[in-house]
Amino acid sequence: MIEHTTQLRVRYAETDTMGYVYYGNYPTYYEVARTELMRSLGSSYRKLEEEGIMMPVISLQIHYKQPAFYDDLLNIRTVIKALSPTRITFGYEIFNESGDLINVGETTLIFISSSSKKPVRAPSWFLDLLSDL
Amino acid sequence: MIEHTTQLRVRYAETDTMGYVYYGNYPTYYEVARTELMRSLGSSYRKLEEEGIMMPVISLQIHYKQPAFYDDLLNIRTVIKALSPTRITFGYEIFNESGDLINVGETTLIFISSSSKKPVRAPSWFLDLLSDL
Amino acid sequence: MIEHTTQLRVRYAETDTMGYVYYGNYPTYYEVARTELMRSLGSSYRKLEEEGIMMPVISLQIHYKQPAFYDDLLNIRTVIKALSPTRITFGYEIFNESGDLINVGETTLIFISSSSKKPVRAPSWFLDLLSDL
Amino acid sequence: MIEHTTQLRVRYAETDTMGYVYYGNYPTYYEVARTELMRSLGSSYRKLEEEGIMMPVISLQIHYKQPAFYDDLLNIRTVIKALSPTRITFGYEIFNESGDLINVGETTLIFISSSSKKPVRAPSWFLDLLSDL
Repeated sequence: MIEHTTQLRVRYAETDTMGYVYYGNYPTYYEVARTELMRSLGSSYRKLEEEGIMMPVISLQIHYKQPAFYDDLLNIRTVIKALSPTRITFGYEIFNESGDLINVGETTLIFISSSSKKPVRAPSWFLDLLSDL
Repeated sequence: MIEHTTQLRVRYAETDTMGYVYYGNYPTYYEVARTELMRSLGSSYRKLEEEGIMMPVISLQIHYKQPAFYDDLLNIRTVIKALSPTRITFGYEIFNESGDLINVGETTLIFISSSSKKPVRAPSWFLDLLSDL
Repeated sequence: MIEHTTQLRVRYAETDTMGYVYYGNYPTYYEVARTELMRSLGSSYRKLEEEGIMMPVISLQIHYKQPAFYDDLLNIRTVIKALSPTRITFGYEIFNESGDLINVGETTLIFISSSSKKPVRAPSWFLDLLSDL
Repeated sequence: MIEHTTQLRVRYAETDTMGYVYYGNYPTYYEVARTELMRSLGSSYRKLEEEGIMMPVISLQIHYKQPAFYDDLLNIRTVIKALSPTRITFGYEIFNESGDLINVGETTLIFISSSSKKPVRAPSWFLDLLSDL
């Protein structure tokens, strides 16, 4: 299974009055994580956009286990849970430096044409890259 | 069933390179929506915090149907889907000005003590307020 | 002098570990304020974008006087401090509900063509609208 | 003169409809930069907070020269421009991978007590660390 771990440090901007990372900032952390997974495979989301393909998220799920705090160094383990020519599902687990599981999440993205905004099939080079053989 | 609709205008800051509202900004819209639902019932989340109770989110789900754009005036319909002394689940539907459904989501929050950070039961005045009789 | 006051309520997402509105969120508040000033004059920034004009900010200044907190209802008084065919300067003062001055700021924006990304003159209808005679 | 350069990659969340990094996200980049400067000196802002000191920003200035885009790898050069027992001024220059100057900025921060919220003098270990001898 394709997987990748990305490290990221919590910014003050991302915390809230509770002193926790605001729950709505984790989708951004997941974005960083899947971007770095693609980069680790030798490609990039940016390259996809340059070919006229965009990847909007169609579903998001997060189960929050523990808070993260300012300046925490987080490890985000990302896997490709499902891949088809029309959609891709990433799974995420975030851990803090003590190894505690902060949260678990999942996002599904589709491929659309930048010009028509209609769903399209992913380029085959992209599918080949992310296929696990 | 307790429900409330809040209006909110999309800020430029909340859009991304696709020209869409970034998927990670909807949790903030949901926060605004549940805050205004509570206010409409005559209370406020702030008042709860002043009593030493905080409400972290323990789960989030969003199904994205259509994009929203800069300056769109959105209507967020919020309902209380489940309420117990230890947790509360809100459901959300966001519509644009044309009445298109933008996305559907759900968040579950628990009550914790600001001092001990341990789960606690919600104050009874709060439960009474949100109970639908 | 053209001026407009916009109201805005602080979101939990916008606060930080200090319990203050994060200093980097005020530029977004200023964006809301100048957008609403334009709307109050019968136009909109969106309309400008539809005509192929974008308005990037070229300078920003903020002097922070007092913190704002979660759920505060803020009043942002916005004025047009300078206007030429190539640039516009807005001034801002944010007050809380007690009338305390939270901060004072200024942004200068230029007009560029969406296609060429080069500076252009503002459309004359836009200048007429914002001119104070 | 004490200086430090931090690298940071632009997130999709940080871009806007223009395709540019939203002007209001640079204060967060500056926060990351001064945090890393302090860490490079062997200390951290977090340690300061643990000693009961907070550092709110009292002024911010940014001059925007060029846009940054999604996935750009930015270098932020940070210097301490002024230091006294009661305040500290950081200067910032952000460059893209081609070496173009993206923007230039400055922030001044004061020291306050977490409990009293009143201005205090910085701990001497902190001043010693940041003094340039």
